[in-house]
Amino acid sequence: MQEITLYNPLDMHLHLREGEMLKSVVDFSASQFVGAVVMPNLSIPITTANLALEYQKEILKNTQNKNFFPLMALYLTESLDQEEFKKSNDNGFKIFKLYPRGVTTNSSSGLDEIFTPRVLEIFEMMEDRGAILSVHGETNGFCLDREYEFGEILIKIAQKFPKLKIILEHMSDRRSIRLLEEYENIYGTLTLHHITMTLDDLLGGGLKPHYFCKPILKTPQDRDALLKLALQAHPKVSFGSDSAPHLEKNKLKDNGAAGIFSAPLILRALADLFDKHECLENLQAFVSDNAMKNYNLCFKQTKKITLQKSHSRIPAKISCIQNDIVPFGANQTLEWK
Amino acid sequence: MQEITLYNPLDMHLHLREGEMLKSVVDFSASQFVGAVVMPNLSIPITTANLALEYQKEILKNTQNKNFFPLMALYLTESLDQEEFKKSNDNGFKIFKLYPRGVTTNSSSGLDEIFTPRVLEIFEMMEDRGAILSVHGETNGFCLDREYEFGEILIKIAQKFPKLKIILEHMSDRRSIRLLEEYENIYGTLTLHHITMTLDDLLGGGLKPHYFCKPILKTPQDRDALLKLALQAHPKVSFGSDSAPHLEKNKLKDNGAAGIFSAPLILRALADLFDKHECLENLQAFVSDNAMKNYNLCFKQTKKITLQKSHSRIPAKISCIQNDIVPFGANQTLEWK
Repeated sequence: MQEITLYNPLDMHLHLREGEMLKSVVDFSASQFVGAVVMPNLSIPITTANLALEYQKEILKNTQNKNFFPLMALYLTESLDQEEFKKSNDNGFKIFKLYPRGVTTNSSSGLDEIFTPRVLEIFEMMEDRGAILSVHGETNGFCLDREYEFGEILIKIAQKFPKLKIILEHMSDRRSIRLLEEYENIYGTLTLHHITMTLDDLLGGGLKPHYFCKPILKTPQDRDALLKLALQAHPKVSFGSDSAPHLEKNKLKDNGAAGIFSAPLILRALADLFDKHECLENLQAFVSDNAMKNYNLCFKQTKKITLQKSHSRIPAKISCIQNDIVPFGANQTLEWK
Repeated sequence: MQEITLYNPLDMHLHLREGEMLKSVVDFSASQFVGAVVMPNLSIPITTANLALEYQKEILKNTQNKNFFPLMALYLTESLDQEEFKKSNDNGFKIFKLYPRGVTTNSSSGLDEIFTPRVLEIFEMMEDRGAILSVHGETNGFCLDREYEFGEILIKIAQKFPKLKIILEHMSDRRSIRLLEEYENIYGTLTLHHITMTLDDLLGGGLKPHYFCKPILKTPQDRDALLKLALQAHPKVSFGSDSAPHLEKNKLKDNGAAGIFSAPLILRALADLFDKHECLENLQAFVSDNAMKNYNLCFKQTKKITLQKSHSRIPAKISCIQNDIVPFGANQTLEWK
């Protein structure tokens, strides 16, 4: 039977939520990955080192998988000062997530303006200390152009702070690829859904709320260009699932929530995808080596995950809080497990 | 108080459904319009003159408004022969609706291929007798390009049958406008939603299933170009609401139904829109005169609808079959009633 062993797989963009939801979802990620960058957009955003420490403890308390390390991202606000920044650093928290206000789930504490004196000070501090700026790169413009429009802002930051590592999260638009190529300090993460789906999957037939996410799925040309980037394990991209669980009742309602819950199937779906495109040898770089290098990570132990070419089924639903969470590809069969 | 009186308003594209749903929705249209082109995509499609006659009777039986005339459109299939065609003509049914198979609600009886000898025969018969070809003009391609791609097929039909009147229903893509300008026998209908909304209304914030329709809403540039066409009452476009009721439970589910139920608010919303753009004087042409001319219609009586500039509220829900139908713009206030 064909097999592949992955060493220290990493998910560089993950939503674990809190409370009961956290309990229901954490082990899907903790069982597959050695580490994950955990997003701070909770209902009370993780804006301080203390909140991040508490959240990290809550995550670790709720997982059975002892060799899983949550890499905490702090929610970037204007109140991040020298002291708080130092405290974050002392605790090993080096990733700060920038949300423009109002562009996605729980982004109401995000920044209204990027180029204020206070934010520029923060960027400078981050640049000096080798922190990483993780960005939800969308404007409030027309949905298909939001990421493209935000590109201008990324370029400005990249030019003003040439030593600051900037990560454009969940790349969705092929016009963003040139940013990685033209600016040394701009990097990206890619999700499973943006490299495999288009707007057609959301609304080409009936409306599929479980495929509704931000940034929205785009055109076949966008998907194909981003898929190519993933399959070649472009050195400036890492895998970041953006797995984002919501209760089924909050997806199937008016004004439904954005987010695709892909955690249960990620590594086998990636093995399936890379195998089908005859690029299985690049999967290790895409799900681990690139991130290790780009984020300067190192782990004491090595976590090995072996996948076999053998059919497996994606569950229809995951139970949670008297409701369900429907995973990406629910009920479908994959060729890897 | 500012007023406008419309004479013989017409809705040239309307879904009235059947049974209980028909009862719940018909009077919203029958009270505003002197006539409406009633779409034949029921669960048992209206493919014959007899079915159309029966359906027309059912509609008339269920409305309180006696001066409302349902203009029946027949579902075009390969089985439409000379005899059936003559029978349709004898009953005054002159509009035949072409659905490519699988592109929208109840289109599974639609045509797989347009240019078969049988379909060409039908087009020829229609051309000879002055029938009207009404088209859901979408391919099975990528959602944003479906109407544009279908343009090539429309052009072929228009060139092959230069005397056949072809109506591109619910125009949604600005690239379709040139078809009206370049081909004498191609006309169009415009909905309220495609001239006022974009993809952002469906998924720019939370997901709004009540704004999910086919063809899907497109870009601001598309909306603006089509709105301009409506506001100037371009002589080759008529108003066709494509009001398409679905039960709320069928909208707010996985694989949700496509269709926007705009019937309850159409004339006041159009008055509001034309007034805001200072084009109120063109509304009569857009909602009646153009259609009268382009479809060669005449009514014995004149139905007058007077609208006043005074606030009115769109209902939140319409009750139907132990469930609800949520109308377009539910709960919003309009400046006309």
